[in-house]
Amino acid sequence: MSESSDSSTGLTYPVTDRNRVKRRHDRGHYDHETVHALLDAAALCHVAYVVDGEPYCTPTLFWREGTRLYWHGSSASRMLRTLAEGQRACLTVTHFDSLVLARCGYNHSADYRSVMAFGQARLVDDPEEKTRALVMMVDRFFPGRTAQLRASSEQEVKATSVVWMEIEQASAKIRAKGVVDEDEDYELPIYAERLPVRMVLGEPEACPRLLPGVERPEALKAYEGGRLLESALRESYEAAYSPRSR
Amino acid sequence: MSESSDSSTGLTYPVTDRNRVKRRHDRGHYDHETVHALLDAAALCHVAYVVDGEPYCTPTLFWREGTRLYWHGSSASRMLRTLAEGQRACLTVTHFDSLVLARCGYNHSADYRSVMAFGQARLVDDPEEKTRALVMMVDRFFPGRTAQLRASSEQEVKATSVVWMEIEQASAKIRAKGVVDEDEDYELPIYAERLPVRMVLGEPEACPRLLPGVERPEALKAYEGGRLLESALRESYEAAYSPRSR
Repeated sequence: MSESSDSSTGLTYPVTDRNRVKRRHDRGHYDHETVHALLDAAALCHVAYVVDGEPYCTPTLFWREGTRLYWHGSSASRMLRTLAEGQRACLTVTHFDSLVLARCGYNHSADYRSVMAFGQARLVDDPEEKTRALVMMVDRFFPGRTAQLRASSEQEVKATSVVWMEIEQASAKIRAKGVVDEDEDYELPIYAERLPVRMVLGEPEACPRLLPGVERPEALKAYEGGRLLESALRESYEAAYSPRSR
Repeated sequence: MSESSDSSTGLTYPVTDRNRVKRRHDRGHYDHETVHALLDAAALCHVAYVVDGEPYCTPTLFWREGTRLYWHGSSASRMLRTLAEGQRACLTVTHFDSLVLARCGYNHSADYRSVMAFGQARLVDDPEEKTRALVMMVDRFFPGRTAQLRASSEQEVKATSVVWMEIEQASAKIRAKGVVDEDEDYELPIYAERLPVRMVLGEPEACPRLLPGVERPEALKAYEGGRLLESALRESYEAAYSPRSR
């Protein structure tokens, strides 16, 4: 479903009862190409995890490398402290594409593209790997940016925890068909429509305290006011990784 | 933080270790007014729940009435079958407002407004209550619409499960400050910006199979191309409920 670099691999995530799309199974996809393209088009995800039997659903920024997902946060956060020893997690990304108004209540719906990814979340412990991950935390979204920044202090690195999760299983679920009514309902004089929804970039707001002469780097050109966020993120993903690590 | 109808109640959700905002506690809010306003500005949520110790994070449409949240789905879905007997759940709503590019990696961030709501999710069993909920499933988003639709069949009602959850605890977390750098970093010749992100409505796409003369109902006027989705949802919420049930 995209020109992703996975298109030629033909790889697929294993399907079990855990990730099989049960409801409307025609909407389910398990191939790397579809799953990865939807992940790379998002910056925000929601991670579910369990503490003392209680489920938590936490929004966070994330990024992908190959079949591995990363997210981060304060070393003091509940989510990250809990994950330190390795914990089951489900990371979900949803692109909300429309509200669908049909001719009966039952067929009211939404168009969307979502991914649920399952695995064991763990802290990045290895110092070299953590340093590399802290670079990608910025450069995955804004390719090459870390090289232009003030270097991180030891304290800043310590205060940040990075989590990784190998995707053991994943499923994508896609509805992209707008209004679908029962055959006989099309004969009724009832209004129906698809109401598109889009995540759009606004005009960049430069920091008012920029030093004179500091210009917006060319590397940020994907992030232009009016563009779809997902287009900018997809382009940046392609620029951030070498073909091998995609 | 809004002109919500809760503004005069002064009510607050109880705070315990479960919902206390630990990381950046200055961003935490527990009052009904703030929590409800953020919920009413969204149609999509993510629900975390646990099956056999494994966390799941499922995107779904939802709505609020007072301190109660509702969502729905196929009676066959895994999430809903699991909830039938009453199960802990965490329903999270996130408004993603910007990406923040600072002068060091550590201060890269995002502006956002999120709510985590905790409770015991249960199926709506009572037939009258289910009928009422099935109306609100449509009318909460499109006030008065059910009256214009083909009535639901018995089979359609059976095939739909509705879940409700009394909010036992909730917290809102808000970051809305754009670029914030260390004092000394403002002296560096590094570009920094706030990159706004918005969920915007596209132009409504009328069903191509409308009967001649069927016009878009006046009641949908909140949903206009180019508007923020959250503005349309807030207006619709106000129109959908009597002041008493807000």
